[in-house]
Amino acid sequence: MGRPKSTRVTVREIAAAAGVSPATVSRVLTGQATVSERTEAAVRDAMERLGAPGPHPAAAKRTARPGAVFVRCPYLLTDYFGTIVTAVAEALDRHGRELILSAGSSAQHNGALAGLPRRRDLAGALLVLPVEDGAELEQLRRQDFPFVVIDPRTPVPRDIAAVSASHFTGARNLTAHLVALGHRRIGFINGPEDWLASASRFAGHTAALAEAGVLIPPELVTSIEPTSDWGHTAAGRLLDLPDRPTALVAFNDKAAIGALRAAHVRGLRVPLDLSVVGFDDEYLSRTSVPALTTVRQPLEELGGLAVSLLLRLLEGTAVEALHVELATELIVRDSTGPVPGS
Amino acid sequence: MGRPKSTRVTVREIAAAAGVSPATVSRVLTGQATVSERTEAAVRDAMERLGAPGPHPAAAKRTARPGAVFVRCPYLLTDYFGTIVTAVAEALDRHGRELILSAGSSAQHNGALAGLPRRRDLAGALLVLPVEDGAELEQLRRQDFPFVVIDPRTPVPRDIAAVSASHFTGARNLTAHLVALGHRRIGFINGPEDWLASASRFAGHTAALAEAGVLIPPELVTSIEPTSDWGHTAAGRLLDLPDRPTALVAFNDKAAIGALRAAHVRGLRVPLDLSVVGFDDEYLSRTSVPALTTVRQPLEELGGLAVSLLLRLLEGTAVEALHVELATELIVRDSTGPVPGS
Repeated sequence: MGRPKSTRVTVREIAAAAGVSPATVSRVLTGQATVSERTEAAVRDAMERLGAPGPHPAAAKRTARPGAVFVRCPYLLTDYFGTIVTAVAEALDRHGRELILSAGSSAQHNGALAGLPRRRDLAGALLVLPVEDGAELEQLRRQDFPFVVIDPRTPVPRDIAAVSASHFTGARNLTAHLVALGHRRIGFINGPEDWLASASRFAGHTAALAEAGVLIPPELVTSIEPTSDWGHTAAGRLLDLPDRPTALVAFNDKAAIGALRAAHVRGLRVPLDLSVVGFDDEYLSRTSVPALTTVRQPLEELGGLAVSLLLRLLEGTAVEALHVELATELIVRDSTGPVPGS
Repeated sequence: MGRPKSTRVTVREIAAAAGVSPATVSRVLTGQATVSERTEAAVRDAMERLGAPGPHPAAAKRTARPGAVFVRCPYLLTDYFGTIVTAVAEALDRHGRELILSAGSSAQHNGALAGLPRRRDLAGALLVLPVEDGAELEQLRRQDFPFVVIDPRTPVPRDIAAVSASHFTGARNLTAHLVALGHRRIGFINGPEDWLASASRFAGHTAALAEAGVLIPPELVTSIEPTSDWGHTAAGRLLDLPDRPTALVAFNDKAAIGALRAAHVRGLRVPLDLSVVGFDDEYLSRTSVPALTTVRQPLEELGGLAVSLLLRLLEGTAVEALHVELATELIVRDSTGPVPGS
């Protein structure tokens, strides 16, 4: 991803260095009262050692920059984005901060971002999956306007705070699950090629197969808009190959649901003839027949942690190159089984 | 619903009285420029005749009350609520109004509503499915604070502006579709009994069956929290009756998905052995196997029309007892078929 390793510190790494659980690190980062002073000090020490200086206790006592928080999520607020924005709203409410919302695809090009630093009523901003590239975000940062990126679309410069799910690790665990079930010929329905999440997840899938001595042949890799219809089409193409894959890995649950349908119309039984996996743990992954094996992204925590990071910035804390990745969780349901003929 | 009929005027009724299409009425109500002055005058005349005085052209020229719009949607922003809030955000953005968001279940009891009239920065509010009853909303109105209720949970006093989908008509059309397929013994999985939407939809179902000479026996009626799990349980109970229904009508798509699953585990084929219908036209209704027959609620229009009504109030227009119901649309997919043995 083009950044020195030291600038990307995960909660898990901090936890290991401090000798506490990742949940405890989260509690410290979100300023919860249930952590002892001793534990908090250990976590802060670990963060400093790992090059993630983060919040300094003294800084928290300074007066925070007043004003509302501008939250931009320039998409339809579906289960995915809506869950993040809801968590942000609840966290800001707990801290007595007003939330000014900019949402919907019309917000992608209304130019609101450039005007933010001039606005007196705003303390800072949270940008969910921003459409702007790193250079544009860097320009905003140079104007000393505090903001945090949630779920970056492209790599974020090291001096901009960002929180995301650990796409690489989540994907690696997912494909490792398929490998353990005996699958070797796996088809990949990736997201858009220029998305950070697509690249990171595919790197994870590649790593898991490489660990089993398998390189992914190009004919088993497709790249789509992550919707159910596109998933259906892409899955159909992979399933119609002369030597069809025994498992399909979709970029997200929506695409995986489309893949289930493509299997259904071809008379393939999931998971007897074919395994299918998604990513996100959306509501529909639990209600599909069969229910989807997937990866849970900690969407509530992403929102809550982003608010916490922003509030630290508003308190004047130097947050140099602090990129936080939250662990994902493999959720095994009914859409994965042993490779056919095993 | 305890209100004089004249206070509830639907877009369809206005359209019929004005001799134009419902879409044209919507365009007038949302102030779009694509409507001729002559048509606009006809629509406004019809509204006045029907007792829905609504916006007066002269009023629109007054200066609108300045400030941001407070939007409260005290729920997780899922596909349903998120779509409404996104439409509201886009409409407010088009009108250059700031949106202050209060969302998530923690917003249900944070007391923000009572303080709204004292806030100088706010022009008005949009309340999505408010948890407050009519008396509490009436109290807010008496303080001359402009607001519009979207998708009311309980009947709204006649002097408070409200927009909702036409639950009654949508439900009636849905059950009429089942009746036309020969179904007479239909099981109902209703929403919570104290919800306006539950009562209105069940009245619609009852009407459609009564028109076919059928009264609904009490053992075929259940009432649940509208989730997939509750839908599964309630459907199971109905399907295990000695004389089981040939069709199930669920309060929403989530509950219907649970019903599909209950049918699946009992070896019942949908729609060969059993028809299942939902309500809402959520994403998951399109991706389930089989895809659900359902009723589309015009969620984007609900949001856009609510903004439009609020802006009229901010311009000082008298909106006495204007409750607007937007038409729903029957979406026939693969989960409904002829009654077995027909």
